[in-house]
Amino acid sequence: MTDFALQCPAPALDAAGLIVLGHGSGGRLSHELLRQVFLPAFQNEELSRLEDSARVSVSRGEIALTTDAFVVSPVEFPGGDIGKLAVCGTVNDLAVSGATPLFLTASFVLEEGLSIALLSRIVASMQRCCLEACVKLVAGDTKVVERGKADQVFITTSGVGVFAEGKRLSIRDARPGDCILISGSVGDHGVAILSKREHLEFTTDLESDCAPLVELCRMLRETQGLRCMRDPTRGGLATALHEIAQASGVGILLEAAAVPVKPAVRGACELFGFDPLYMANEGKVLSIIAESEAEHAVRRLREHPLGRDAAIIGRVSEEHPGIVRARSASGYCQELRLLASDLLPRIC
Amino acid sequence: MTDFALQCPAPALDAAGLIVLGHGSGGRLSHELLRQVFLPAFQNEELSRLEDSARVSVSRGEIALTTDAFVVSPVEFPGGDIGKLAVCGTVNDLAVSGATPLFLTASFVLEEGLSIALLSRIVASMQRCCLEACVKLVAGDTKVVERGKADQVFITTSGVGVFAEGKRLSIRDARPGDCILISGSVGDHGVAILSKREHLEFTTDLESDCAPLVELCRMLRETQGLRCMRDPTRGGLATALHEIAQASGVGILLEAAAVPVKPAVRGACELFGFDPLYMANEGKVLSIIAESEAEHAVRRLREHPLGRDAAIIGRVSEEHPGIVRARSASGYCQELRLLASDLLPRIC
Repeated sequence: MTDFALQCPAPALDAAGLIVLGHGSGGRLSHELLRQVFLPAFQNEELSRLEDSARVSVSRGEIALTTDAFVVSPVEFPGGDIGKLAVCGTVNDLAVSGATPLFLTASFVLEEGLSIALLSRIVASMQRCCLEACVKLVAGDTKVVERGKADQVFITTSGVGVFAEGKRLSIRDARPGDCILISGSVGDHGVAILSKREHLEFTTDLESDCAPLVELCRMLRETQGLRCMRDPTRGGLATALHEIAQASGVGILLEAAAVPVKPAVRGACELFGFDPLYMANEGKVLSIIAESEAEHAVRRLREHPLGRDAAIIGRVSEEHPGIVRARSASGYCQELRLLASDLLPRIC
Repeated sequence: MTDFALQCPAPALDAAGLIVLGHGSGGRLSHELLRQVFLPAFQNEELSRLEDSARVSVSRGEIALTTDAFVVSPVEFPGGDIGKLAVCGTVNDLAVSGATPLFLTASFVLEEGLSIALLSRIVASMQRCCLEACVKLVAGDTKVVERGKADQVFITTSGVGVFAEGKRLSIRDARPGDCILISGSVGDHGVAILSKREHLEFTTDLESDCAPLVELCRMLRETQGLRCMRDPTRGGLATALHEIAQASGVGILLEAAAVPVKPAVRGACELFGFDPLYMANEGKVLSIIAESEAEHAVRRLREHPLGRDAAIIGRVSEEHPGIVRARSASGYCQELRLLASDLLPRIC
């Protein structure tokens, strides 16, 4: 059903299969785009009602809310596309907060001239990811801007989740002695995007790690000594650790040799002068766990396909509050400062 | 506080006071933009925590969810700006669904080179509108794209509201005999934007009607015979009525002379060949109410400053299901078809 628009191109949508300004008008063309591309993909009662708001039930009184805009370039890349990224990104923000993701909304800003076939692929990819993450996309909006006023497609997803009883997680709760865990290799997403950038293309089999982290986060939530989780997206592992160190007022010492980095990522980073610790991830969970529980948590993560390379990569310390340091195999310590800007813009 | 960035320009933000790609990086420049523009404006505990998701309480188990992207051009116009529009638009979608709006999220896609002073004005305007509508902006995101890859700023707002007990409203519930009410004059927003469009500028004192409709919707919800409400935004009154006629399987007969239209709107529409019934509104509520309660509802609406020009403008009929017709003063009936496209693109 998700390829409906491709199988039965309705002439009214535009003879050339391209988005025109009228698709964002709220008029007949908007309705057709909705009925031919969006509704068949995200089949659910709430969305199909086409009311001004979706009405959904939540079982508990406390909910998690989050939003993210996605402007990744290129919109399709090895291992994913902007649609998969938009669903995973928001689902993961809910999951690392300790919530169970339930509902998503999505808004699309489309550039006039965008191929409807490409839009349909992106929407199909979003729906596959919603199914995988057990979330429902219940409300949406589409706007179209003139050629040259956007770059193909921007997507904003917002998400609602519910919190399990009891455990509240916060990046303010890291304590000296805690262990730092990463669920797998770092920098995969950043290097996958880099490999497809205009003027930079190089050959690699590397794919983005973009994936929903709902299951991994659920496993970590069952760990007694869990303090907090983060998904180290733009800015990478170093930036996420920096935010935790600042919020908790603790120091963080990373064992550089313990951080899993794929050879392809290491190679590309050496070639371009980037540091894998600052490269974006879209399917990794970083967690801070009490020392006594950390080994157990790593073993549990490794049972899951997305956590096979999970590792303890450092410690929280009382010394150097607010500062993240990396120690090399030879024992040399270097501060990992918050970078002013990106290594790569438009990574997500 | 919202002009903090202007009063104390931090050199790091950019010497020229312009957005640079690094402001969307998640690194130091992003943190500075957050702390200097966004956090001081939307001062609240949830946002200031800077966790991956905001944690909020809802008193009931059923919530309303909605999202809208805003790409209006120009971003500042008589009576408002894209920020005011983004808050009102989402608040109003919740309100006309019968929900009480509580929480918003906002994502910003900024074009490199955007003036930070303009962004600060937009953000200040959002916050004023949040206060007026009694909603809290609890989560946000900012991305920056290269010059020429967006048009200054696009904003997506998503909203969460709670439903009052009992009454469920749906655009499927219009019944033959019901009256159609509008809370005031139509087309103000559309013509206000038109007056500022490049190559089209003409002189008018007209302002956009952009306003939060929370109070008007609350008053209407207290009316026993209320079937449904809609805010007739892009596509105008005719398109909103069309959606109701289709969803409810009823006919709608509009008394054209009863629809309030300001002289400035009528004049501009005649000049450009537009129909005020298709022009966008951003501060009007359209409602369908049982005949017995309609007069009372109009009197109540007129007590409110935003409802001074409220009027009964037509009837729901059994005849011509799915079709909207307008009857002129002379008795001539004309079908108001769903337009294929906009009169004006990028109206919201």
